[in-house]
Amino acid sequence: MASALLPVSPERIADAARRVMSRCDDLARISAAPDRIERVYLSPEHARVNRLAAEWMREIGMTTRQDAAGNQIGRLDTAGDEPALMIGSHLDTVADAGRYDGIVGVLMGIEVVRMLREPADDDGSSWRSPLPFALEVAAFWDEEGTRFGKALLGSSAVGGVWDDGWWDLADAEGTTLAQAFREFGLDPGRVGEAARRSDELVGYLEAHIEQGPELHRSGESLAVVSSIASARRFLLSVEGEARHAGGTPYDMRRDALLGASEAALAVERICRAEHHIIGTVGQFEAFPGGVNIVPGEVQFSLDLRGEFDGERDRVWQRLTAELDEIMGRRGLRWQHREIHNAAAVACAPLLQDVVREGIRAAAGEVTDEPPAIFSRAGHDGMALGGLTGIGMLFLRNPDGISHHPDEDVSTADVARGIRALAESVLHLAADRRAAA
Amino acid sequence: MASALLPVSPERIADAARRVMSRCDDLARISAAPDRIERVYLSPEHARVNRLAAEWMREIGMTTRQDAAGNQIGRLDTAGDEPALMIGSHLDTVADAGRYDGIVGVLMGIEVVRMLREPADDDGSSWRSPLPFALEVAAFWDEEGTRFGKALLGSSAVGGVWDDGWWDLADAEGTTLAQAFREFGLDPGRVGEAARRSDELVGYLEAHIEQGPELHRSGESLAVVSSIASARRFLLSVEGEARHAGGTPYDMRRDALLGASEAALAVERICRAEHHIIGTVGQFEAFPGGVNIVPGEVQFSLDLRGEFDGERDRVWQRLTAELDEIMGRRGLRWQHREIHNAAAVACAPLLQDVVREGIRAAAGEVTDEPPAIFSRAGHDGMALGGLTGIGMLFLRNPDGISHHPDEDVSTADVARGIRALAESVLHLAADRRAAA
Repeated sequence: MASALLPVSPERIADAARRVMSRCDDLARISAAPDRIERVYLSPEHARVNRLAAEWMREIGMTTRQDAAGNQIGRLDTAGDEPALMIGSHLDTVADAGRYDGIVGVLMGIEVVRMLREPADDDGSSWRSPLPFALEVAAFWDEEGTRFGKALLGSSAVGGVWDDGWWDLADAEGTTLAQAFREFGLDPGRVGEAARRSDELVGYLEAHIEQGPELHRSGESLAVVSSIASARRFLLSVEGEARHAGGTPYDMRRDALLGASEAALAVERICRAEHHIIGTVGQFEAFPGGVNIVPGEVQFSLDLRGEFDGERDRVWQRLTAELDEIMGRRGLRWQHREIHNAAAVACAPLLQDVVREGIRAAAGEVTDEPPAIFSRAGHDGMALGGLTGIGMLFLRNPDGISHHPDEDVSTADVARGIRALAESVLHLAADRRAAA
Repeated sequence: MASALLPVSPERIADAARRVMSRCDDLARISAAPDRIERVYLSPEHARVNRLAAEWMREIGMTTRQDAAGNQIGRLDTAGDEPALMIGSHLDTVADAGRYDGIVGVLMGIEVVRMLREPADDDGSSWRSPLPFALEVAAFWDEEGTRFGKALLGSSAVGGVWDDGWWDLADAEGTTLAQAFREFGLDPGRVGEAARRSDELVGYLEAHIEQGPELHRSGESLAVVSSIASARRFLLSVEGEARHAGGTPYDMRRDALLGASEAALAVERICRAEHHIIGTVGQFEAFPGGVNIVPGEVQFSLDLRGEFDGERDRVWQRLTAELDEIMGRRGLRWQHREIHNAAAVACAPLLQDVVREGIRAAAGEVTDEPPAIFSRAGHDGMALGGLTGIGMLFLRNPDGISHHPDEDVSTADVARGIRALAESVLHLAADRRAAA
């Protein structure tokens, strides 16, 4: 393996990369807000973006459908009825997002299909996959969890792990997920139809910007992902007593803000002392929020990630003991509610191999071992891990900035990524032919 | 001094206290919200409450007027044209307020006038002050600053320290103070007419619940106030960088929340080490506020109070040095904007003396020294300190809860307070007669 299998000129790769970048700009203009990027699940922007993605898919001969959870799927069949390799990522965004997270992976998938397809008839009016599997491009909604707090909704529907307890999740306006489904034109009772069977798929491949600085620091363009972090998310609240700021001496205060501040610093201290564990307090607000009132309540979030579930859970136990101590000492009560719990998902050895071969082939050399990275960020593949093997390719992310308007990726790295992803698909095809 | 001068039976005092409590209940029903107490400056509730207060003032023979800033003033002249002792407090409230803060002081003033007045003619149809000064009861708006953020508006107009820069202050709906004046029927151009001259007043006395637990703890009913705290308020912001929670390792984070959490704890640590200094972070919110985003910005408030301006300012200097260190170490920037700066106002020695004598006379004994308290909370007297001498009487506040629906004061303590306040006025009258 590791030989280059893709008979495509550098010019054609460069064209594809420029098209990806230009389409990222097109999609950035479809936003709920004029001055920033925000596209959430089941919104008017969701519908507009799906229509545009479907056009781009049909333009290269794919058949398209919006599935029962609102995901946009394109498919290019083989001459027979082989199962499909799914290449995907997501098109929803966080609030005030960058323009590449998720999006670049969907658009690279379309370019890879464009390069690998072959005419299905003499007049060039239809196309098919020449590989021992069909090709699908999946554009998932909602990976980020921006609207309903729960992430990986669309891919969970496809992965067959949808939970009916989610229907009552509400957005900031109080609209439940079930209502939003209906308003978008989807039927909550039919969400199960989005689920795929294992025998329909040969695997899932995803290209994504790294959302971290490892490649930027090491000077590499591309990496193979070894696993996707295990993550737990909690909403915590600290309760004390709201009192007059002037009238209440320190020894009579039960200041929820000071307890919660100690908690946030304890998260940092305990997680920093561990390898491969990272904890983030991202939401944090004091109530009632008067300049002259001692805060009686604080609500904050905790996002806890690790490469291994056991290590992560051990850190959570240490944190709860620490919070008991802090809040007990300050006369405060605290409680938590777990809103997300995802086990670490290892990438399939075969798909790690083909991605590694794809990176080598794209780099034009076979000696160096491409870097392997464990992803601290969650990805749609986590919801698909029980359905099919998953593999991921990371693209260098300058300064590691993501979920931010300054998020970036270079056209040159996208070009390398497209070649590597196409080579990965061809190496997977070669492997399946050899095994057949 | 310290002998009881008030020829009024315990039954009459008890009647007066019950009337004060019952009228506090009456006023509590005049609110912008059905389920809680909220009466802000220049609102329909302001107008209704002024009409009711004016009725209560006229019922005991006072002449009444609403001044050019919306304060409700009642006056009982002497037989001549002596200057007045002003007894006052405020009738506006915080949001979700208790029913006694400010209110009880205005209503106690009315009861004191009722006890001290004498008939001005034979048929009992008019009344006058028998003292060597007229008596005024002032009901100020807006002491709390609930609507426009700036406190002590009404008393600032009376004190002649109105600042024309305040006209552009806007409420939550965007209505400016100038617009609100006009909508209420007041003329912003005439607010100067509310200002009083020093030679019109012999002093200002105010009774108020303590808004703190000192009396509750010591088992005393009443205290003389030595001074009103100096207070400064700041809005602070910490700026770091918003980044993806999973993708950003600790050594690349510039987490604004962790810097601000350290700052809040530093405020507590530094202020606790000082006597008579108290610092409160009451507002605190992290942005952008995503569960999976490292906070790039935190905005928080600091309320800093001390008995002495110099001590308070020295603590602020120490805090700024500490914040420089914290933010420098974490790669964060911070800035502040001062939104309030009030010098400490000492109560006039003579008025402290007469309040002390009033408390002793009300207690029926002359041996114990009544407790002296410095008020950490601000009061209308702060805005009047440049106009005339001020004196304050504090009433026990069970558990020290104020600015909260659970705020309380006992009828027995209000009765003691009415007697002490009336005795204070009589002791001031005796002092002026002796000095004449």
